[in-house]
Amino acid sequence: DFLNALEEVKPAFGADGAELEDALPYGIIHFSQSIPAILNDGLLYVENVRQQERLRHTSVLLHGPPASGKTALAAHIAMKSDYPFIKIITPASMVGFRDEVAKKDHLHKIFTDAYKSPLSMLIIDNIERLIEWNPVGPRLSNNILQALVTLLQTPPPKGHRLLILATTSQLSVMEQLDVTTAFDRQIRVPAVQDARELAAVLGESGAFESPEDVNLVLNRVREYSGGNSDRIGVGIKTILTTAETARLSAEPAEWFAEQIATQIARYNPYSGVSGN
Amino acid sequence: DFLNALEEVKPAFGADGAELEDALPYGIIHFSQSIPAILNDGLLYVENVRQQERLRHTSVLLHGPPASGKTALAAHIAMKSDYPFIKIITPASMVGFRDEVAKKDHLHKIFTDAYKSPLSMLIIDNIERLIEWNPVGPRLSNNILQALVTLLQTPPPKGHRLLILATTSQLSVMEQLDVTTAFDRQIRVPAVQDARELAAVLGESGAFESPEDVNLVLNRVREYSGGNSDRIGVGIKTILTTAETARLSAEPAEWFAEQIATQIARYNPYSGVSGN
Amino acid sequence: DFLNALEEVKPAFGADGAELEDALPYGIIHFSQSIPAILNDGLLYVENVRQQERLRHTSVLLHGPPASGKTALAAHIAMKSDYPFIKIITPASMVGFRDEVAKKDHLHKIFTDAYKSPLSMLIIDNIERLIEWNPVGPRLSNNILQALVTLLQTPPPKGHRLLILATTSQLSVMEQLDVTTAFDRQIRVPAVQDARELAAVLGESGAFESPEDVNLVLNRVREYSGGNSDRIGVGIKTILTTAETARLSAEPAEWFAEQIATQIARYNPYSGVSGN
Amino acid sequence: DFLNALEEVKPAFGADGAELEDALPYGIIHFSQSIPAILNDGLLYVENVRQQERLRHTSVLLHGPPASGKTALAAHIAMKSDYPFIKIITPASMVGFRDEVAKKDHLHKIFTDAYKSPLSMLIIDNIERLIEWNPVGPRLSNNILQALVTLLQTPPPKGHRLLILATTSQLSVMEQLDVTTAFDRQIRVPAVQDARELAAVLGESGAFESPEDVNLVLNRVREYSGGNSDRIGVGIKTILTTAETARLSAEPAEWFAEQIATQIARYNPYSGVSGN
Amino acid sequence: DFLNALEEVKPAFGADGAELEDALPYGIIHFSQSIPAILNDGLLYVENVRQQERLRHTSVLLHGPPASGKTALAAHIAMKSDYPFIKIITPASMVGFRDEVAKKDHLHKIFTDAYKSPLSMLIIDNIERLIEWNPVGPRLSNNILQALVTLLQTPPPKGHRLLILATTSQLSVMEQLDVTTAFDRQIRVPAVQDARELAAVLGESGAFESPEDVNLVLNRVREYSGGNSDRIGVGIKTILTTAETARLSAEPAEWFAEQIATQIARYNPYSGVSGN
Amino acid sequence: DFLNALEEVKPAFGADGAELEDALPYGIIHFSQSIPAILNDGLLYVENVRQQERLRHTSVLLHGPPASGKTALAAHIAMKSDYPFIKIITPASMVGFRDEVAKKDHLHKIFTDAYKSPLSMLIIDNIERLIEWNPVGPRLSNNILQALVTLLQTPPPKGHRLLILATTSQLSVMEQLDVTTAFDRQIRVPAVQDARELAAVLGESGAFESPEDVNLVLNRVREYSGGNSDRIGVGIKTILTTAETARLSAEPAEWFAEQIATQIARYNPYSGVSGN
Ligand SMILES: Nc1ncnc2c1ncn2[C@@H]1O[C@H](COP(=O)(O)OP(=O)(O)OP(=O)(O)O)[C@@H](O)[C@H]1O
Ligand SMILES: Nc1ncnc2c1ncn2[C@@H]1O[C@H](COP(=O)(O)OP(=O)(O)OP(=O)(O)O)[C@@H](O)[C@H]1O
Ligand SMILES: Nc1ncnc2c1ncn2[C@@H]1O[C@H](COP(=O)(O)OP(=O)(O)OP(=O)(O)O)[C@@H](O)[C@H]1O
Ligand SMILES: Nc1ncnc2c1ncn2[C@@H]1O[C@H](COP(=O)(O)OP(=O)(O)OP(=O)(O)O)[C@@H](O)[C@H]1O
Ligand SMILES: Nc1ncnc2c1ncn2[C@@H]1O[C@H](COP(=O)(O)OP(=O)(O)OP(=O)(O)O)[C@@H](O)[C@H]1O
Ligand SMILES: Nc1ncnc2c1ncn2[C@@H]1O[C@H](COP(=O)(O)OP(=O)(O)OP(=O)(O)O)[C@@H](O)[C@H]1O
Ligand SMILES: [Mg+2]
Ligand SMILES: [Mg+2]
Ligand SMILES: [Mg+2]
Ligand SMILES: [Mg+2]
Ligand SMILES: [Mg+2]
Ligand SMILES: [Mg+2]
Repeated sequence: DFLNALEEVKPAFGADGAELEDALPYGIIHFSQSIPAILNDGLLYVENVRQQERLRHTSVLLHGPPASGKTALAAHIAMKSDYPFIKIITPASMVGFRDEVAKKDHLHKIFTDAYKSPLSMLIIDNIERLIEWNPVGPRLSNNILQALVTLLQTPPPKGHRLLILATTSQLSVMEQLDVTTAFDRQIRVPAVQDARELAAVLGESGAFESPEDVNLVLNRVREYSGGNSDRIGVGIKTILTTAETARLSAEPAEWFAEQIATQIARYNPYSGVSGN
Repeated sequence: DFLNALEEVKPAFGADGAELEDALPYGIIHFSQSIPAILNDGLLYVENVRQQERLRHTSVLLHGPPASGKTALAAHIAMKSDYPFIKIITPASMVGFRDEVAKKDHLHKIFTDAYKSPLSMLIIDNIERLIEWNPVGPRLSNNILQALVTLLQTPPPKGHRLLILATTSQLSVMEQLDVTTAFDRQIRVPAVQDARELAAVLGESGAFESPEDVNLVLNRVREYSGGNSDRIGVGIKTILTTAETARLSAEPAEWFAEQIATQIARYNPYSGVSGN
Repeated sequence: DFLNALEEVKPAFGADGAELEDALPYGIIHFSQSIPAILNDGLLYVENVRQQERLRHTSVLLHGPPASGKTALAAHIAMKSDYPFIKIITPASMVGFRDEVAKKDHLHKIFTDAYKSPLSMLIIDNIERLIEWNPVGPRLSNNILQALVTLLQTPPPKGHRLLILATTSQLSVMEQLDVTTAFDRQIRVPAVQDARELAAVLGESGAFESPEDVNLVLNRVREYSGGNSDRIGVGIKTILTTAETARLSAEPAEWFAEQIATQIARYNPYSGVSGN
Repeated sequence: DFLNALEEVKPAFGADGAELEDALPYGIIHFSQSIPAILNDGLLYVENVRQQERLRHTSVLLHGPPASGKTALAAHIAMKSDYPFIKIITPASMVGFRDEVAKKDHLHKIFTDAYKSPLSMLIIDNIERLIEWNPVGPRLSNNILQALVTLLQTPPPKGHRLLILATTSQLSVMEQLDVTTAFDRQIRVPAVQDARELAAVLGESGAFESPEDVNLVLNRVREYSGGNSDRIGVGIKTILTTAETARLSAEPAEWFAEQIATQIARYNPYSGVSGN
Repeated sequence: DFLNALEEVKPAFGADGAELEDALPYGIIHFSQSIPAILNDGLLYVENVRQQERLRHTSVLLHGPPASGKTALAAHIAMKSDYPFIKIITPASMVGFRDEVAKKDHLHKIFTDAYKSPLSMLIIDNIERLIEWNPVGPRLSNNILQALVTLLQTPPPKGHRLLILATTSQLSVMEQLDVTTAFDRQIRVPAVQDARELAAVLGESGAFESPEDVNLVLNRVREYSGGNSDRIGVGIKTILTTAETARLSAEPAEWFAEQIATQIARYNPYSGVSGN
Repeated sequence: DFLNALEEVKPAFGADGAELEDALPYGIIHFSQSIPAILNDGLLYVENVRQQERLRHTSVLLHGPPASGKTALAAHIAMKSDYPFIKIITPASMVGFRDEVAKKDHLHKIFTDAYKSPLSMLIIDNIERLIEWNPVGPRLSNNILQALVTLLQTPPPKGHRLLILATTSQLSVMEQLDVTTAFDRQIRVPAVQDARELAAVLGESGAFESPEDVNLVLNRVREYSGGNSDRIGVGIKTILTTAETARLSAEPAEWFAEQIATQIARYNPYSGVSGN
């Protein structure tokens, strides 16, 4: 099955290799059952595009809360794919373009490049940013939106195959804009849900040196979430980077727990935080 | 009658032949009575434009839910028409143009080209995309909209004849914009409605190898649609591509049925899905 | 009187002669008393502009439902006028211009040309399209609107006379925009109202060969309109072109009646259609 | 006093003389007491600008319903003024400019020209049009609006004097836009109010040859206005031009009365029209 | 103290001297206690900027009803200041610039010029006009607004000092736009409030020759304001210019009183005007 | 700990040194416990970015009411940091750029410069101004907003480290725009809260010479805030600059107290001001 294939890392792929690796500085931690399921689905589509008969392309949307690991998972799938052409389109790679027309043209050019390889993968990271969406107005670049939706739905020329993995943390915006209907498949990426999953993350990552620190954190988080340990809802990226930042502080575990608490409160406004 | 004419394929037409064929990778499956009726209507207009005395052009709007086969049916009618000039205008063929003025000019140029042939057909695919419509705002390119509506209503010069087939999955938007009144005729393209039609599609396409798989799928779909097998409402493209994607999965029929179920739920929010 | 003058066709006028003739492929059918009245009014203004003392120009708005014959009637009046300069400005003649500034300049240029002849007529067809109006937004070209309204109200230089005939099927939009107040006179062009008028159109045009067909149509239409034969409200252009399209169908009269029925339903939503 | 001065026409002024004369093809009819009062006020401002000590400019807004004679009255005052520099800025003189920036620059240039003469008058006709106002949106050229308001309030350089007469039929729009506060003075121009004033207009203008015709018209208008002869409210320009157009019709007086009736109905929707 | 300093006029300052003088054609009349208080405050800021240790700039907003004398007071303070660099930025000085970018650049340039002098004053007159604000929309130049707010809050380079006096008659707009928070200090400029103040203005200015005329005016104004002589609320500029315009009319005092009455009515809609 | 490090000033850093110093003309006064806590947090992030393993950048938002000292605190942290590259981006440094594209490009360039140093700090001052936000409309530069949010979230290239300190006095706007989620950390900067803190500020700054003056001020402020001395809520910048401006006035303490009172009233509309 595909999960076994995850173990061996295939080193040979296109120019974006370093960039892909840079997308998962903390690797992939299997903190819940959903992680292997997501990778499994992703690799199914990788194989499908390679092998299917009449379809020449598939577009997949990875959506989930901020910091939940969408980009890392897409990069991981790409690294496992062994495709000869892999390219990642990030908001950062777009910021240098003058205006929306220049961005749209660049997006188009990347697709045109991909069409030249017999087997290509494009990762389009943070599509809400690509289309320049902001919640006030509302406002966005219709020019880029139209190009994106069209390119998502257009198969490459005969003899060419293309897999598109896109990420977003704004699923409802994408639904309002009808962008979701332009995707063939969707994959939901969850946040870290409860204390058990949090324990798994802290354990596997070695974020804290002593088990006492981990216990202190878990107790605090249970308190903050009002005893309701099922409702943490914080992204794994937030957890891992906050833990790293905590190390230099006077009391790392305390500091970490307090920082995470603000996040819990933000997502669970009625969680009845008792705090200190 | 025209239906008989469908059997023999006429090979000789303009440059877009390959593109037309590419529009129906799974051919045309007669899963319901509406399919031959649609083709019949389409070919009536083909003949009319060829033969009618005073009218020199007709514009027809094929509308229906997403993935219901609008583009394939338009392409099929075109392939049967034996017209010397056939051109298909897709959103993908527009994406390279800089801005709405460039798109509008290109649209105009294609019509001007068509006017040079004594007998021409233009397929304008996904007009909601051509006019750059998005549901938030609302926003669209008025520049292109005005050109489109004008060109739809303008007869070619004397001695020239033109048939326009356009497609949309946003009929209500087109009505709001008064675009529908610019068409002479409309053709409604339905989704696959019920288990009987679904059985026909799966049967004719050979999507699953064993009849047991087909039965498993049908049973599941009946369950999902709350026993109400009249309310599937999923486009034939979705059905055929999902079946193809299913093949590589561990349990193709199960996987296929689950994917279709999400679609049913989307269109029938009150269908009382019992699911597993 | 002017009606007698209608009989003899005056051949000698400007370059747009062929275009004018092309505007009435089915001629003018006197299906009701309003038709000669409209022509009478139109020719009154033709004579007035030629003869009046202090006024040097008059602008007339022909308004009515879509397909009711506005353009044909304006063209007919122009053909009868014997004016040395006649020009028709259609949306199609504007579609090639880059943007609203280019369209506005072209409009201005046509008026400037007209001012060079001692006696000129301009037909401005579909002014809602000229100003690029669309119902969503609402949106329009204020640039063109301002030029249009100004040009409508400006007399030509001394020694020059100008008659402007404009058409619209969006009277209420024109009223909202205060465009109607820029016209000196208005002419209302009605649709075909009832079975008697429909019979006149079908009779005079020879649309169906046998009287049985005509009777079948009339009976059907009476049924569709709920016995209320006073409320057809379909434009003569729709009737004549649908009849021509019907000819190639298997059962022309049936097909024709059904097509017209959809139109009646659209205009008379409470007409209690009983149908088959 | 100034009214006596009205009798002798002073022929010597700037290049716009012919244009000013063209603004009052029917002269000025004293159909009510308000007409000499308006002229009196206008000429008071003419003298003030010429003679006042510290003020170097005055701006006056003539406002009233459409066709009430605003432009003619402004032109008449200008013709009587004997100023060495008189210029009229009409929407028609602006229509050839490319866009709002070009119009704004032209407006600015005209003021700069005026500043070169020791004593100048500018007539700015239809300022709602100059600022490109349309009632849908609402939309206007803020660029021109800002320039207009600024120029209205700026005195010319020392040793130079300027009188500005502007007209509008959209007083409430000008109030909403705060344009009215930019004017030093206002003059209200009324429509023809009642049968007595209408009789005066028809009498002085010699619009109808026989007194019977005049009587017929007055009786009809009384009927149309529901016996309420105080509420005609039609502009003198409408009355005079409709009368001229009426001459060629079969029954001039009847036709004229009917046309005027539509206007009365428009302004007095509750006038209880009894009609024929 | 500073008030004594008001008596002697200092002649030597920058190029805008003539323009400053032109801003107060009627001088400064001390019609109420608020006038010397305003001048006192203004000169306090003049001295502060000259002498304070760590602060290098101060920005002051003079706000008050239209015509209340804001510009004249700012000009007067500038004339008394003896600063080596004084510049006044008026809407009129901006009207020749092409668009908002050109205006913004000019504004920026003036500040940059001011930064070159060790001690500079800028008067920015009518900032609502500078930012191109109009009440419909609402609409303004965000480009200029951003530059203005930034420049107001930026100190000049070390060794340089800057005082900014800005005026507006749209205080509430400036508050909505958060422009007021960009100013360090505010000065309120009142209108002429009551009959006593009006008497002072008419007396000091010598607007009317005979005391009878003044009395007639005061009586009339008392009548118009419904006996409530505390609620005149008309700007001193309006009073002085109307008085000058009145001189040529047949009955100057009557005419003046009537004109002022319309103004009172405008500001005091419920003042119970009894009229003549 | 980091607070001790605050005592010794490190003189050697990049070109913006003088500009940083200019941001705190009155130094940093420790008027409450929150001040050392803020500096402590800031220096924790300074050390983190220098030392952390996998993270290469951190972005921190300093938010608080206007004039509360955000810019001064960020500058102070930067001056203590000993980073080789420090750059401050202020609205004033952006005002010379032509339009939003030029500003966006400049912002991008500064980040690109920062990426060249192994250890960089960027202070982005007043981000609400950078994105050209104004409260009417609402309106902002989506172009700059998108670049800002992207650059905040993008790590520098490998081997490079970046700390970003941004300031805003519009936290709720930043939350509406989802800008806050682009920051890793937030620091709240409070205003001066109560009479005790105000006393500390006046004491340490030596704003008034005699203790009587300080007492007079404190008594007045207690009166103005309705005895509720916990609700002053005025920024320290306002307090220090008003005190400096007060020195030249006749009664400095009185004048100062009155000016501060207006500010209290503005933030505490229901503070029951009793006044003098
Ligand atoms: N199971 C996992 N899934 C995803 N990421 C993981 C997992 N385990 C560890 N990580 C680490 O967590 C981080 C996930 O960050 P990533 O940028 O992918 O989140 P994101 O959802 O894309 O965030 P954003 O919403 O900001 O785009 C990476 O550093 C990655 O190495
Ligand atoms: N009866 C049929 N009608 C239409 N398409 C059919 C039929 N039978 C099989 N097909 C296949 O179904 C697919 C229809 O896809 P098509 O792109 O035409 O749908 P669509 O309605 O245009 O979708 P979209 O809304 O995305 O534009 C084609 O691959 C076609 O070969
Ligand atoms: N009495 C009539 N009045 C007008 N047109 C008539 C009449 N009798 C026959 N016709 C024919 O009907 C057609 C009228 O079409 P026309 O384009 O003028 O309608 P329209 O109202 O301008 O339509 P649209 O609203 O699309 O602009 C022409 O082909 C004309 O020859
Ligand atoms: N007393 C009068 N006042 C004004 N115009 C008069 C008078 N008597 C006769 N006229 C004639 O009436 C006409 C007035 O038309 P004019 O264009 O001035 O009206 P207007 O109010 O400017 O119209 P619009 O609202 O279209 O700008 C002129 O032809 C003028 O000669
Ligand atoms: N006490 C006074 N304060 C201000 N102006 C005075 C005073 N006494 C007389 N004046 C005169 O009153 C006029 C004030 O006009 P000014 O243009 O300054 O008003 P404003 O408030 O700037 O008007 P606007 O709102 O139109 O900008 C000047 O002519 C000035 O000479
Ligand atoms: N504890 C302190 N914190 C911050 N600033 C202080 C402190 N003590 C004294 N100051 C002085 O107060 C002033 C703070 O002004 P600063 O410009 O930093 O405020 P700000 O919050 O950035 O204002 P704005 O909202 O206008 O951007 C500086 O002059 C600084 O020297
Ligand atoms: Mg991501
Ligand atoms: Mg399609
Ligand atoms: Mg027409
Ligand atoms: Mg006029
Ligand atoms: Mg002023
Ligand atoms: Mg600051």
